[in-house]
Amino acid sequence: MDKRVAPFGFAVRVYWEDTDAGGIVFYANYLKFFERARTEWLRSLGVEQQKLKDTSGGMFVVAQTCVRYLRPARLDDALVVTARLVDKGRASMTICQQTLLKSEHINNVNSASEPILLCEGTVKIGWVDAATLKPARMPGCLLERLKT
Amino acid sequence: MDKRVAPFGFAVRVYWEDTDAGGIVFYANYLKFFERARTEWLRSLGVEQQKLKDTSGGMFVVAQTCVRYLRPARLDDALVVTARLVDKGRASMTICQQTLLKSEHINNVNSASEPILLCEGTVKIGWVDAATLKPARMPGCLLERLKT
Amino acid sequence: MDKRVAPFGFAVRVYWEDTDAGGIVFYANYLKFFERARTEWLRSLGVEQQKLKDTSGGMFVVAQTCVRYLRPARLDDALVVTARLVDKGRASMTICQQTLLKSEHINNVNSASEPILLCEGTVKIGWVDAATLKPARMPGCLLERLKT
Amino acid sequence: MDKRVAPFGFAVRVYWEDTDAGGIVFYANYLKFFERARTEWLRSLGVEQQKLKDTSGGMFVVAQTCVRYLRPARLDDALVVTARLVDKGRASMTICQQTLLKSEHINNVNSASEPILLCEGTVKIGWVDAATLKPARMPGCLLERLKT
Repeated sequence: MDKRVAPFGFAVRVYWEDTDAGGIVFYANYLKFFERARTEWLRSLGVEQQKLKDTSGGMFVVAQTCVRYLRPARLDDALVVTARLVDKGRASMTICQQTLLKSEHINNVNSASEPILLCEGTVKIGWVDAATLKPARMPGCLLERLKT
Repeated sequence: MDKRVAPFGFAVRVYWEDTDAGGIVFYANYLKFFERARTEWLRSLGVEQQKLKDTSGGMFVVAQTCVRYLRPARLDDALVVTARLVDKGRASMTICQQTLLKSEHINNVNSASEPILLCEGTVKIGWVDAATLKPARMPGCLLERLKT
Repeated sequence: MDKRVAPFGFAVRVYWEDTDAGGIVFYANYLKFFERARTEWLRSLGVEQQKLKDTSGGMFVVAQTCVRYLRPARLDDALVVTARLVDKGRASMTICQQTLLKSEHINNVNSASEPILLCEGTVKIGWVDAATLKPARMPGCLLERLKT
Repeated sequence: MDKRVAPFGFAVRVYWEDTDAGGIVFYANYLKFFERARTEWLRSLGVEQQKLKDTSGGMFVVAQTCVRYLRPARLDDALVVTARLVDKGRASMTICQQTLLKSEHINNVNSASEPILLCEGTVKIGWVDAATLKPARMPGCLLERLKT
């Protein structure tokens, strides 16, 4: 992973809906946070998924997810969720993602300290025909925008 | 509500996904429990919603929900969720629903005691064209099955 | 409802997680949107719920929700969710909430047009002891902040 | 994976809440299905997680998940979710899980045909102190039940 290029980051706040009776964020919900960040990363590249589905007849489906949970998040925590494209083919792509806890919420002494890594993972996404759900090649306009 | 006819009842178990950091079931999730019970009530009448959508081009949408939350449910609780049709038109229907805590889980002494009411509500459902989402008349086969 | 005072508004984007197979936002998820807006409204008044629970031993629980669903939201829609305090006691309060579709997304001709009302409802919230879940009087610092 | 011992299987029905606007089950929700199956597998061994938390002060947290999504599930599908313990230490364990589509729903001709694999994955779970969330050794009674 090329650390020289900063990954796309998206702010997520933890609400009651995200937590479970353990008092922490329910682990499956980090996949939702990852999805929100990927959606906003795509939007930042000019890709709106609903429009793309309407015009191209295709959509993304998730093919594989691997996530390591290191530290828990709690109600009211302010998180940053990242997305960084690490591999891209004509029918799929792989994105590395992290959820970080903003430091100002945990360290009043040194506000310049690093954010804390809560979980990280890899998501492989395929492009399919929305009607048949069969794998398909991404439309040219999409490939073009993912180049950057 | 005519108490002489027993309402349809569906068993629901509380899992981690249903709870929040308050240690209890997140209130919005009772709407999910209600939906599961309505779906199984319809299935018990011979109505499969996916098939009905595929064949008739229509589907149910929820138009209104009113829910009162009386007592909380917790992880591992065994619940019964009821559904009772209380009003029916050609394009909509109203269902009364309750979530009850099975008594054996809370009273080992007297297993014949009444289940405890946790929440109850009313759900108004409309029938719409699945493509346009405009209100429509329920297909005859559906109205026929709802007669019972 | 006093329309002279603008209600608190909070931006919510619709993601895949919010939708269902009908192609629209799953109705139970509007309760999540309402909750996020209430949480941010409270935060705007200086109330952080996790801190308040840690310091006072109490928390909010939802006692009643009534919601009317008028029009559907879809993937990628940009929404505004409002919260307006309409009634307040010592142990409970009632909030009126709406979900609106931002006009720029639906009307390119006239960007100054009114946002479209998608759903609206009333949420009654009680204050309870977090350990026993019994109703309790809100702490003074909370009542003070709710005065505004 | 030793195929001679049948894994624990738990029936899950697909409801509206589980689907997304792609018309299929939202991939993050398979983690919920996996969790339900693990919970019922533990219950079948005599382990009730809420009771265990109340008596031992500890609970499970998920440390890692890897899931491959092969085929989609849809509304009304009848699924079987499996759980098979593949590794166990004093503070963690690893479970292999699958989601299968029951064959009778997809093959009316040959009802004896094999169920179809929709997704499979591995979930690593750690035992922590519920108050501090620090890793801890599983209580003896739990280790004993996991022996079988």
